[in-house]
Amino acid sequence: MKLELCSYPTCPYVHRSAIMLHEKGVPFERCHIDLKNKPDWFLAISPRGKVPVLVADGVALFESAAINEFLDETHGPRFLPDDPFERARQRAWIEVANDLFLAQYKLFTAPSAEEVDAAARTLDSVLLLFEKALASGVIDETGFGLVHAAAAPAFYRLVLFARLGGARLMTAAPRVAAWAERLASRPSVAETVPDDFAARWLRSISEKGSHLARSLAGASGPEAAVSRAAV
Amino acid sequence: MKLELCSYPTCPYVHRSAIMLHEKGVPFERCHIDLKNKPDWFLAISPRGKVPVLVADGVALFESAAINEFLDETHGPRFLPDDPFERARQRAWIEVANDLFLAQYKLFTAPSAEEVDAAARTLDSVLLLFEKALASGVIDETGFGLVHAAAAPAFYRLVLFARLGGARLMTAAPRVAAWAERLASRPSVAETVPDDFAARWLRSISEKGSHLARSLAGASGPEAAVSRAAV
Repeated sequence: MKLELCSYPTCPYVHRSAIMLHEKGVPFERCHIDLKNKPDWFLAISPRGKVPVLVADGVALFESAAINEFLDETHGPRFLPDDPFERARQRAWIEVANDLFLAQYKLFTAPSAEEVDAAARTLDSVLLLFEKALASGVIDETGFGLVHAAAAPAFYRLVLFARLGGARLMTAAPRVAAWAERLASRPSVAETVPDDFAARWLRSISEKGSHLARSLAGASGPEAAVSRAAV
Repeated sequence: MKLELCSYPTCPYVHRSAIMLHEKGVPFERCHIDLKNKPDWFLAISPRGKVPVLVADGVALFESAAINEFLDETHGPRFLPDDPFERARQRAWIEVANDLFLAQYKLFTAPSAEEVDAAARTLDSVLLLFEKALASGVIDETGFGLVHAAAAPAFYRLVLFARLGGARLMTAAPRVAAWAERLASRPSVAETVPDDFAARWLRSISEKGSHLARSLAGASGPEAAVSRAAV
């Protein structure tokens, strides 16, 4: 199957599908979409105008969760188990991972200390759901599956921020924090972003007025924070 | 399989799963959750504290999309086709149906004429996606499947508002408007809300300051609008 992933370098939803492709060991091409100036051919295959789109043997598929289930159904080994109860549970936790994406986005784009505090509280409430799910075994801490692929891009960004010298943002959920570190270091997660991801990502949140990026960069700008941290 | 749907009378996500159960011809019980005062046993089985939860043979499943796929996998006939491309496409359109839910919620709770206009424009942009999908045959206009179950509760509310004497809100997408009428009249959609749904729903959006509910009710309140329309 010929696969092409329509991408944007810092998009966490693209990252989800790239992780899945890497985990499955499937070779794929990338094309990069300028989200500020979307080409017509892309708008014709992406109903909501969003990345990722996966073009599989010429057929365009959209929505990261749908793409990842497609990859699981077409490329072994199967991540989603056969038991319908377990399948339903994993699909539900993929939805909770969406809350994690929204919460980290709010946090990293919050323009003031007050808004950072509010966003951090929201993030904590989502992290605590995962904390319980790890403790009860609903999510497998050591394995890897569709839920892990769905959550990993958010954790990658939270871990990266700490590695760049920022505040640790997962103190409320120690089990999740350890799990996030492992996920962020996993080759499928760490190797499916561009080499200059940290600088690009800091720049993108800085452009949105990020208080957290400012707290990190000080007067010297995000590039300096990146080179200081040498990630 | 013993099935119990934890419900709230006006919740469109609960409606999705009730539609699915009705389409499958599966008998089920309901329990009603007071969302302003959630019982502890419910919070223990619903990680995000939301309805619906489906308790299936004692196992609690959450998230309407995951519940509906579970019902499709466990109760024939199968709605989701075998072809992985088609499965991915349908799952992606279930995500677009989520945009429809958010857009209609914004519209019906918008407190001012200006905010109604903005929400109506957002709704139109989503309706136009469905208009194209119906025209191209990506969504089957006459059949019924997971996408239809996912979209129908939003259409039911939009059609109901027009039936109650309100403005027609789907003029930008005539094909969708006709499809929405058919879905809203389908037994699985119309018979899975409480008998007093219209009054309850108008009251619930009125409580949120709905400009549209006010435009309908005039000085006499939502109950009068409901009895005038005699739906």
